[in-house]
Amino acid sequence: MKLSHRITHLTPSGSDGWEVFYRARAMKAAGENVLELTIGEHDIRTHASILAAMNESAKGGHTGYASVPGTPELRKAVADRIQSRTGVATVPENILITPGGQAALFAAHNAVCDEGDTALYIDPYYATYPGTIRGVGAIPKAIPAFPENGFQPRADDIARHAQGATSLLINTPNNPTGAVYSKATLSAIADTCKTHDLWLISDEVYDTQLWDGTHISPRALPDMANRTLVIGSMSKSHAMTGSRVGWVCGPQDAIEHLVNLATHTTYGVPGYIQDAAHFALGQGTPLEDEIAAPFARRRQITEALLATQNIVKASPTQGAMYAMLDIRATGLSGLDFANDLLDAHGIATMPGESFGQAAAGHIRVAMTIADEDYAAALKTLLGFANDKAA
Amino acid sequence: MKLSHRITHLTPSGSDGWEVFYRARAMKAAGENVLELTIGEHDIRTHASILAAMNESAKGGHTGYASVPGTPELRKAVADRIQSRTGVATVPENILITPGGQAALFAAHNAVCDEGDTALYIDPYYATYPGTIRGVGAIPKAIPAFPENGFQPRADDIARHAQGATSLLINTPNNPTGAVYSKATLSAIADTCKTHDLWLISDEVYDTQLWDGTHISPRALPDMANRTLVIGSMSKSHAMTGSRVGWVCGPQDAIEHLVNLATHTTYGVPGYIQDAAHFALGQGTPLEDEIAAPFARRRQITEALLATQNIVKASPTQGAMYAMLDIRATGLSGLDFANDLLDAHGIATMPGESFGQAAAGHIRVAMTIADEDYAAALKTLLGFANDKAA
Repeated sequence: MKLSHRITHLTPSGSDGWEVFYRARAMKAAGENVLELTIGEHDIRTHASILAAMNESAKGGHTGYASVPGTPELRKAVADRIQSRTGVATVPENILITPGGQAALFAAHNAVCDEGDTALYIDPYYATYPGTIRGVGAIPKAIPAFPENGFQPRADDIARHAQGATSLLINTPNNPTGAVYSKATLSAIADTCKTHDLWLISDEVYDTQLWDGTHISPRALPDMANRTLVIGSMSKSHAMTGSRVGWVCGPQDAIEHLVNLATHTTYGVPGYIQDAAHFALGQGTPLEDEIAAPFARRRQITEALLATQNIVKASPTQGAMYAMLDIRATGLSGLDFANDLLDAHGIATMPGESFGQAAAGHIRVAMTIADEDYAAALKTLLGFANDKAA
Repeated sequence: MKLSHRITHLTPSGSDGWEVFYRARAMKAAGENVLELTIGEHDIRTHASILAAMNESAKGGHTGYASVPGTPELRKAVADRIQSRTGVATVPENILITPGGQAALFAAHNAVCDEGDTALYIDPYYATYPGTIRGVGAIPKAIPAFPENGFQPRADDIARHAQGATSLLINTPNNPTGAVYSKATLSAIADTCKTHDLWLISDEVYDTQLWDGTHISPRALPDMANRTLVIGSMSKSHAMTGSRVGWVCGPQDAIEHLVNLATHTTYGVPGYIQDAAHFALGQGTPLEDEIAAPFARRRQITEALLATQNIVKASPTQGAMYAMLDIRATGLSGLDFANDLLDAHGIATMPGESFGQAAAGHIRVAMTIADEDYAAALKTLLGFANDKAA
């Protein structure tokens, strides 16, 4: 039976670099000793107090259909948080609660792109971006951001791709590169969006993981609030990855249509999970800082170890839970380096090629294991690179 | 800013009959005494033992990203349940776990329909059906099922609409009509699907609420397993409406692509909810029977009260938690009847017109309040109809 062109062409066939990840998982399942520095999952579980709040809500009877746009309490808490962090006036009617950030990315593109529209994104990119765009029938078009610029997209590259496009998807702090977009980068992005009448879809799920510089939400830039859809999530900021709760923040008329879309795609988010998220947001920045602290420490470990050698170069590790390491001095591709490192030392990393063309010759290291193990693994990695380069 | 045509045309503007529902909710919120016989929500909460299983799983650490296709345990439990109920060989690879039945409906249509394809559905229909089809860019086309035929679609009506279509969506036991499709109806549907090479999307979320006849899953009919996507859910069978957990069951190659779609639309379902669902399915039919029992009782109440008068006629109440009442003898539309009944007696029902053209002159009553209250409300409704008809 014939399946839709859309679903059968969602992702290209052939290697996408993720085979290293799956091979590592298989080795681990077979009992081998593998250290995974691959995906963006915390090495802690969701905080017990959040789970207790969820259990109380469920036992209290919040197990029926929740309001599709989100509970009034959670919508307000998210709106208040965004307003206090960005200074942009934000009310509950600007917020749609979604079952996770990925669902928010999909909904946002569905809201602005029709079949055949061009949707821009920045390369290197989070793995699902092009498929999310194809999933709504739009055509993904990558704007490269080069390692020479710290993976900040350049104004002329952005402007050059914008003609005829419908939307631009950005992510700062950035997965996979660890870049935090500067004021200049974001101003150039905003200018291009206004000049070419683009929607800006701003994925800010790492906004609490900031090691250097300032997180600027582009919705706060002049005349951008009416053309920006911000993607948020509890996953990274509150170690609630598995709970699948996120949001879209945007103009009220867009959110109204997005609520209608949600009625037809997901029919809301469990009420007890929303109550848990509301509790978690109510703990304020101390909890967010606690969740972010291990990555801050490991980022310091990364910087210190990198300073001891000169084969592996790092892009500035400004934010998020990853380091993008330039291993071109070894003469290997990211894919070959990652495969060889896995075979030689049981350390699993992600080839830069998994995230697009611009990160070729790099590997992404997720700082998601205990500090000492992380330091030891990174030392081994650097020694391995040194041997390869010799 | 321009939003996509797809999202802005998801549902038609103007009255859709749901204003009675929203008016009732507003009256209730304002403190008025309103009996809601409107939506398909149980008058019990999710069973404490299921919530305890969920809490154990969450506290046990199942709070990280769950496997996107679903946990192996839940996929197997769903596959086993379907195999034992239908006799069709079913393995975990036939199952994608989704965040609810609505997400499964959306995913199934996305998997088979491209932009501009025609997707058939039966009128009367569950409210989200046409918008779900529009949500994937396809064109919804209704096949009427008439009250004179107990809302069973007729073979020639099905065949007449099938030319050039891509898919057909059915729902048995049926919301809103309470019909359970007969062997003859389903054979005609299967024949048409095979003759016109249609995908059949079979929404079976009410398969445990059966009062008369036998539930036949069309996937079990000859040569249908390779062209049928079955939609299932824990919502109705296990009173887990708010937990948003359901599934698509289909051919393995289709499920493989649906998993890829899920990676780009939802990124899986909370692991602790899947563990709760796995626990609930493990309780077997006794729990399902317990959840269904109140509706079985109220269906008897409905039949008994209808037999005492001859103004309001009911379509056969064969399954699901609703009775579709023919109030044409009052001379009123379903919408006027529902509005007048709400004003006169504070009883909220759904106009048949909310569910399409074929149920005009009807109202749908959800049997979702305590037996005595339900009996009293239905008596009042019948007396009201009698007065109107006089």
